[in-house]
Amino acid sequence: MQKIGILGGGQLGRMLLQAAANYPVETFVMENDIECPAAHLCHHFINGDIKNFDDVYNFGKELDAITIEIESVNEEALQKLESEGVKVYPRPSALSIIKNKILQKQFYKENEIPAAEFAVTNNVNDIANYPALFPAIHKIAMGGYDGRGVILIKNKEDFVTGFDEPAVLERKINIDKEISIIVASNGNDIAVYPAIEMIFHPLLNLLDYQLSPAELDEKTLWKLEAIATKVVKKLNSPGIFAVEMFIDKENNICVNETAPRVHNSGHHTIEANYSSQFDMLWRIMLGYPLGNTKHILPAAIVNILGEDEYNGAANYNGLEEVLQMENVFVHVYGKKQTKPGRKMGHVTILGKDRHELIRTAHKIKQILKVTALKNL
Amino acid sequence: MQKIGILGGGQLGRMLLQAAANYPVETFVMENDIECPAAHLCHHFINGDIKNFDDVYNFGKELDAITIEIESVNEEALQKLESEGVKVYPRPSALSIIKNKILQKQFYKENEIPAAEFAVTNNVNDIANYPALFPAIHKIAMGGYDGRGVILIKNKEDFVTGFDEPAVLERKINIDKEISIIVASNGNDIAVYPAIEMIFHPLLNLLDYQLSPAELDEKTLWKLEAIATKVVKKLNSPGIFAVEMFIDKENNICVNETAPRVHNSGHHTIEANYSSQFDMLWRIMLGYPLGNTKHILPAAIVNILGEDEYNGAANYNGLEEVLQMENVFVHVYGKKQTKPGRKMGHVTILGKDRHELIRTAHKIKQILKVTALKNL
Repeated sequence: MQKIGILGGGQLGRMLLQAAANYPVETFVMENDIECPAAHLCHHFINGDIKNFDDVYNFGKELDAITIEIESVNEEALQKLESEGVKVYPRPSALSIIKNKILQKQFYKENEIPAAEFAVTNNVNDIANYPALFPAIHKIAMGGYDGRGVILIKNKEDFVTGFDEPAVLERKINIDKEISIIVASNGNDIAVYPAIEMIFHPLLNLLDYQLSPAELDEKTLWKLEAIATKVVKKLNSPGIFAVEMFIDKENNICVNETAPRVHNSGHHTIEANYSSQFDMLWRIMLGYPLGNTKHILPAAIVNILGEDEYNGAANYNGLEEVLQMENVFVHVYGKKQTKPGRKMGHVTILGKDRHELIRTAHKIKQILKVTALKNL
Repeated sequence: MQKIGILGGGQLGRMLLQAAANYPVETFVMENDIECPAAHLCHHFINGDIKNFDDVYNFGKELDAITIEIESVNEEALQKLESEGVKVYPRPSALSIIKNKILQKQFYKENEIPAAEFAVTNNVNDIANYPALFPAIHKIAMGGYDGRGVILIKNKEDFVTGFDEPAVLERKINIDKEISIIVASNGNDIAVYPAIEMIFHPLLNLLDYQLSPAELDEKTLWKLEAIATKVVKKLNSPGIFAVEMFIDKENNICVNETAPRVHNSGHHTIEANYSSQFDMLWRIMLGYPLGNTKHILPAAIVNILGEDEYNGAANYNGLEEVLQMENVFVHVYGKKQTKPGRKMGHVTILGKDRHELIRTAHKIKQILKVTALKNL
């Protein structure tokens, strides 16, 4: 049996391990929290720091292959492991491009992949040099995650709120639709999942729910698929990639960012597609043929996030009501503690009728709330 | 989080634990093989003997609930646990009826549930007392499993091959179809899965593949569902039950036997139904509403059995070819050793066209073979 390790033990690791149990594979997880969502679902759990060179190197050196569930891992250790023959998904060369937003933007530019116009800023004063980009999004080069390290700079009064460290300043896109396409590569062949539409709350500007397949005219879909495929080909690495793209009001497409791993926007593939993104990554790592990306039924995803103003032992309100719905699949990640905005689970809804999917998504968002128990 | 234990760590435990990771629950497994398929997928693995009173009692006494993945567990310990407030699925009273084929047959008779005419035999000489039942099936009362402890007695010349221990002698049914219906009960409500047709090889008399839903006229289906529901109601226990029934050439129905647990005939429900049998058992044990038993798509199951004449480290021949098929889901149970007839995995096929399902099932049976590596 091959020995395969995952750096990080969150919900992505958890769902990867659920899928791993369909195949003959010996699994390893490293994370510094022994109660993390994936800790109990692997053959071997190692308590370690995924950012530490020695920890990552020692974890990986006896493995056949290693993957990540978060980008903030020690790259140097992965490079050394790769040089010693351990297969790394994604390849460290691809990870280093994606991890650093400056390199990522330069990568799109060099490869003529459409992306928002940008400038590199090294400190807060640099921002003033690019008034033509305003209103602009300022993103720190390293370490941003889930909306952290990203800010809107509308005009020169906002300069001071910018980041005083290496960052990317990019022209704000007038977004009409936000699309994610998950692409699988085994190094030779590529498989593309149906496009996913990420629908944001019009007032809160937070992801509201996701729909797959996205409602798109054929020509736009082809363009999106061609761009997503090009990104993955140019990254020159096997693995699973989520290419997030914007369609603006003039129907222009540009890449927002790429994740070199299984991704939140693809969780519905567990039930909705023949081969889920998690199944697909195991196929790639185990040297099996790529799976079938087609959907069985259209789907929506609602994320279950920790409610604002609650910190502590998680309490799932409305779970029973949601579990009574006929066509939903609940995934609770088993995190003991909730905090505002923390990803605590997701619900997948299957159905042929797009309007019904949307109605159910809204209903679930109203019903299901993660708060904290008072008797902590 | 509730603490829930499983007695036995085979493939049923493995698939239960894959499903458990969708819910907030702390999982425990006891088995005497630390490399069993479920050992690494629980929060706490306990190396112990599921037939030993102390082992089972000590395992269960701190748990909120306990279930089984095999009938041959220590009943007395389960009774004691139940009396002390641990919830046991199925209830020990139901398990004791099912575990002993004599009690099981008497249970059907007392409750006017149709089943093959039978007699109880205590030794090999008793068989001769019931010539009117020939040709008959002789089944040992306790400990039979997967065809072991079952023999055909065609006529008086076969008496000597019968069992010299408490057993059931039942009239052989002239089987037209063999059906399994999986029924879920939470103690109040009952949910019934679509009927499954178990198709046997005409020459080898081995299970060839399974199809769900079974092809049945409406009236026969209603009868089957009514009988399966009655069995579960009369067993008076929450849990998952597989009621296996025969339809004879005259379209009479009789119950063959009942399993008080998740069952091989229901593995397709993982992908083919909204709530799988494994998901359903967690819903029952966690006090959630019963799930939706409806199918998303019709399905077939092919079991992956160890080939005859191979003992040793398992080798999966043809796995890649099967993984290339568009609508199949492979489940390998991670057993390191194969032996003739051992259940090593299963493949679920989804599709609307029944003939296509059957064709694919046959194809998979021809391609996929578990042999042993020579370099053991």
